[in-house]
Amino acid sequence: MPPPYPPPLPQLDLSTFKLMEKKHLLCLLYACTLSGAAMERHYRFEVGYTYWSPDCKENMVIGINGRFPGPEIRAKSGDTVVVELKNSLPTEGVVIHWHGIRQFGTPWADGTASISQCAINPDETFVYRFKVDKPGTYFYHGHYGMQRAAGLYGSLIVDVADGEKEPFQYDGELSLLLSDWWHESIQSQMLGLSSIPFRWVGEPQTILINGRGQNNCSLNSQCAPVMLHVRPKKTYRLRIASATSLSSLNLAIGNHKMTVVEADGNYVKPVTVNDVDIYSGESYSVLLKTNQNASSNYWLSIGIRGRLPQTQPALAILNYIPNLPSKLPFDRPPKTPKWNDYLHSKQFTYKILAKNGIPKPPANSNTQITLLNTQSKIDGYIKWSINNISLVLPSTPYIGSMKYGLKNAFHSEKPPENIPDDYDVMRPPVNPNATIGSNIYKLEFNATIDVILQNANALAENVSEIHPWHLHGHDFWILGYGDGKFTENDLANLNLRNPPLRNTVVIFPYGWTAIRFLANNPGVWAFHCHIEPHLHMGMGIILAEGVEFISKIPNEVLRCGITGQKLISNQLH
Amino acid sequence: MPPPYPPPLPQLDLSTFKLMEKKHLLCLLYACTLSGAAMERHYRFEVGYTYWSPDCKENMVIGINGRFPGPEIRAKSGDTVVVELKNSLPTEGVVIHWHGIRQFGTPWADGTASISQCAINPDETFVYRFKVDKPGTYFYHGHYGMQRAAGLYGSLIVDVADGEKEPFQYDGELSLLLSDWWHESIQSQMLGLSSIPFRWVGEPQTILINGRGQNNCSLNSQCAPVMLHVRPKKTYRLRIASATSLSSLNLAIGNHKMTVVEADGNYVKPVTVNDVDIYSGESYSVLLKTNQNASSNYWLSIGIRGRLPQTQPALAILNYIPNLPSKLPFDRPPKTPKWNDYLHSKQFTYKILAKNGIPKPPANSNTQITLLNTQSKIDGYIKWSINNISLVLPSTPYIGSMKYGLKNAFHSEKPPENIPDDYDVMRPPVNPNATIGSNIYKLEFNATIDVILQNANALAENVSEIHPWHLHGHDFWILGYGDGKFTENDLANLNLRNPPLRNTVVIFPYGWTAIRFLANNPGVWAFHCHIEPHLHMGMGIILAEGVEFISKIPNEVLRCGITGQKLISNQLH
Repeated sequence: MPPPYPPPLPQLDLSTFKLMEKKHLLCLLYACTLSGAAMERHYRFEVGYTYWSPDCKENMVIGINGRFPGPEIRAKSGDTVVVELKNSLPTEGVVIHWHGIRQFGTPWADGTASISQCAINPDETFVYRFKVDKPGTYFYHGHYGMQRAAGLYGSLIVDVADGEKEPFQYDGELSLLLSDWWHESIQSQMLGLSSIPFRWVGEPQTILINGRGQNNCSLNSQCAPVMLHVRPKKTYRLRIASATSLSSLNLAIGNHKMTVVEADGNYVKPVTVNDVDIYSGESYSVLLKTNQNASSNYWLSIGIRGRLPQTQPALAILNYIPNLPSKLPFDRPPKTPKWNDYLHSKQFTYKILAKNGIPKPPANSNTQITLLNTQSKIDGYIKWSINNISLVLPSTPYIGSMKYGLKNAFHSEKPPENIPDDYDVMRPPVNPNATIGSNIYKLEFNATIDVILQNANALAENVSEIHPWHLHGHDFWILGYGDGKFTENDLANLNLRNPPLRNTVVIFPYGWTAIRFLANNPGVWAFHCHIEPHLHMGMGIILAEGVEFISKIPNEVLRCGITGQKLISNQLH
Repeated sequence: MPPPYPPPLPQLDLSTFKLMEKKHLLCLLYACTLSGAAMERHYRFEVGYTYWSPDCKENMVIGINGRFPGPEIRAKSGDTVVVELKNSLPTEGVVIHWHGIRQFGTPWADGTASISQCAINPDETFVYRFKVDKPGTYFYHGHYGMQRAAGLYGSLIVDVADGEKEPFQYDGELSLLLSDWWHESIQSQMLGLSSIPFRWVGEPQTILINGRGQNNCSLNSQCAPVMLHVRPKKTYRLRIASATSLSSLNLAIGNHKMTVVEADGNYVKPVTVNDVDIYSGESYSVLLKTNQNASSNYWLSIGIRGRLPQTQPALAILNYIPNLPSKLPFDRPPKTPKWNDYLHSKQFTYKILAKNGIPKPPANSNTQITLLNTQSKIDGYIKWSINNISLVLPSTPYIGSMKYGLKNAFHSEKPPENIPDDYDVMRPPVNPNATIGSNIYKLEFNATIDVILQNANALAENVSEIHPWHLHGHDFWILGYGDGKFTENDLANLNLRNPPLRNTVVIFPYGWTAIRFLANNPGVWAFHCHIEPHLHMGMGIILAEGVEFISKIPNEVLRCGITGQKLISNQLH
């Protein structure tokens, strides 16, 4: 069944309405103004397994309120989002991470199990409450085990505050949340990653657009192709976010160019392209002019980057009203670039630069940390390691064990901040042995931090993969990218003039990426490869700054592990 | 690969040895005697998913220490068993119930999520410590969601104390832990039970004996048939326990009779039979004389009772030494009774009576509760209900909310103790609507309680199923069984002379079963159908007695739900 036409208004959340009424009442009583005033946006999420057919084959997904993907959260800059999350999984804990939201003042609401909170027990409810302080295209997703890959994600859109304007104009908006989908359960995927011999789930069965994809021909309403209804001679803002577990993607629209204007909730210098690369954890807004032959519809095509694709491109139809959505486009779907055309990817990525007026980075940093990304072996298991430590999360959330200075809740040794001089990033590791660790990189509060993400050869010869790194709690400036090993000489060529601000950045095979950020957000923050199986295999680090300035952490996020024990015996002070 | 021959000695737990040494050292120091002295039996269990091929098809199981089924626990009466359980499931909680152990003085160690404790979080360790005070054949299993059906079970054997003797003689012992196995994950099975329309996983793919069964021909060491090695002209004690999720079973051995001597850890009047019915949650010891033609091996066969079988009988070989185990028996496997030959089942069940000397029940009871078992519909979901309430477990363990008198932790209304006079158990319910509830049957401490378990017609015409009811924390006397609706007239015919003591009892289709027990064990106890999907659909009740006499409950079992909140705010007194 095709979706209704013309497209309905976006579904409004009833609880929001109720709240608006409540606020309205309060405003009548207390003489505040509704327009321009920041609001609370209330949502009730019940997380549970549900049958769904994302790609026409029925499967179990982790849905929200019985739907997949989860509902779109929509707020205005300055609003407070309140999500009452009830865990209705029968035996599993759950958390939700609000990807791209920096959580200033609410580090316990970052939704990362073992880091910012204890997982929410089955049948219990946790209320996330956080401010969205910057307009942009965000999304949310599970951050416990590999629950994201099971379908736990949705869009989070922050509009400009009332009275404010976006620095570009458009007539309408379309939203595409991209993901990849396997028919194998996440329990099985996780076990495979932790097995000897290592068992790899393989490439995804299907790429999904807004939770829909096509893997065989028995279409139903859950897997019907996405239709993007547009009117001719208009400009549309296309919001694109990638929640993929594994896949790097490229999006192209037949006959149309796109102008990138936003990345990860930050404005970028408008750049017009034929196709857009998007890595897991990234988001973009592109402007699309419907300036082509209005008697045709057009294909939107999404292909896989960086891995030999064994998955069909995902397709959607750009439907020029009043054509019937079912009218097949005159032209075939656009071809996305060849999976290993890294030059193309680099050209795109290097073009993403800050829009004029975006804050510039401090001219110098206080600290430089180099993070070597290697594949390694620990007791026969294949892992990913950063500076030879493969991250294993502790059972007590760091935010509690750091704040309360607990011993033995994690590995307290300072992790290495540099790479051995003689490490050859172009070759497999000479010594692939690493250790597991839960160590923390403690950052001086308000310091300016440079991180050099250094890619390397994996265990096998001539293999180096793409890793999109995502930083929680901060945006960072991307100062530059390069091939091979980063050297001091590269420092001189870093871009301090118009580096883009983002929360996710790719390291290309055998390459490096340099970022700078301010350690100005009291909390404990994950910084990790956003490929979910890579994180599960240890590809991440933990940063902490200004923990002494975290105001009272709600007890309920600390009810597990050692903080749980200590809270009960009244020993946390 | 066939198992080694002759069979190796049972594997000894090294930690037990270490403890023995420690104890020995203590004994040297403090001049106690080792022989006859009760001991601590230490085990370390790490629960996690592992690949296994229970029936030759590889699947995920929940194993212990990387094996399936879990290790046998072996202790002597009077010993204390200590199991240090580490949860290595990535996102799921876990508990283990020690089935048949009454947990006098340690009700928090009963291993029932939401009842006796909070589920153990991933990566956390909980230490179960309980006394085994009665020799017998027991087992242990998961008691959270449907983790038992995922493979979380093992044997627990309690021998007589040193210096004591069993009231029967035997030359050797064999142990059979029976279960049923599906290729569909428990996550999917559970979702199906909670869906509209209801989705039923169907009959098991395979019946397992000691975790092994055969579903196709590619045998490997994990699914090789069980070989029972015996010498001619001897008597063997065959310990049989059923951890099935669904199936009622019948066990027969070609050419051999068996003499039942123990049921659920209680001695019974020896009765010699051709085959043994065994319902989920039950255990038996039978004596087997190897008095047949010693030049042949014999088949042991296990068939399904009470449901139209779509599963092959399980087979094992009784190997008369020195025949090769691979020597095919002369005779074909014994045929177990037809699935719906209830007369046969009743004849067997009615013959299980107390051995002389087993304590008799009090002549009268203080309270009689009748529990009507019906299938019902709640908001379109199919449920099982007891007196029209379908059990839904709360997020706060009862043991804590009862002990500390918390309001709102469960439904506090007293549940019904009787059946409407006009209820017709032979017909589908006139009104199939029921309610969900977490209500408690509060029993007067030390009172004598009679329970009439009353079966009835399910939702469909002419359907009434077998339900084996298991009581935690107690044994009960089985005073009688009958067909149709229990009436006051049946009271006169109850067996007070030699009723067997057990912890699990069947109700036959359209029948009733009367039991009596002493409410003498301070704690909160589940009483439920041991068919795991039936319990998941609400088929159970909660009993509580003498909660005021429970000594200090360890805080760590109360760290979830409302008790968790209150412990932290220091409000539990």
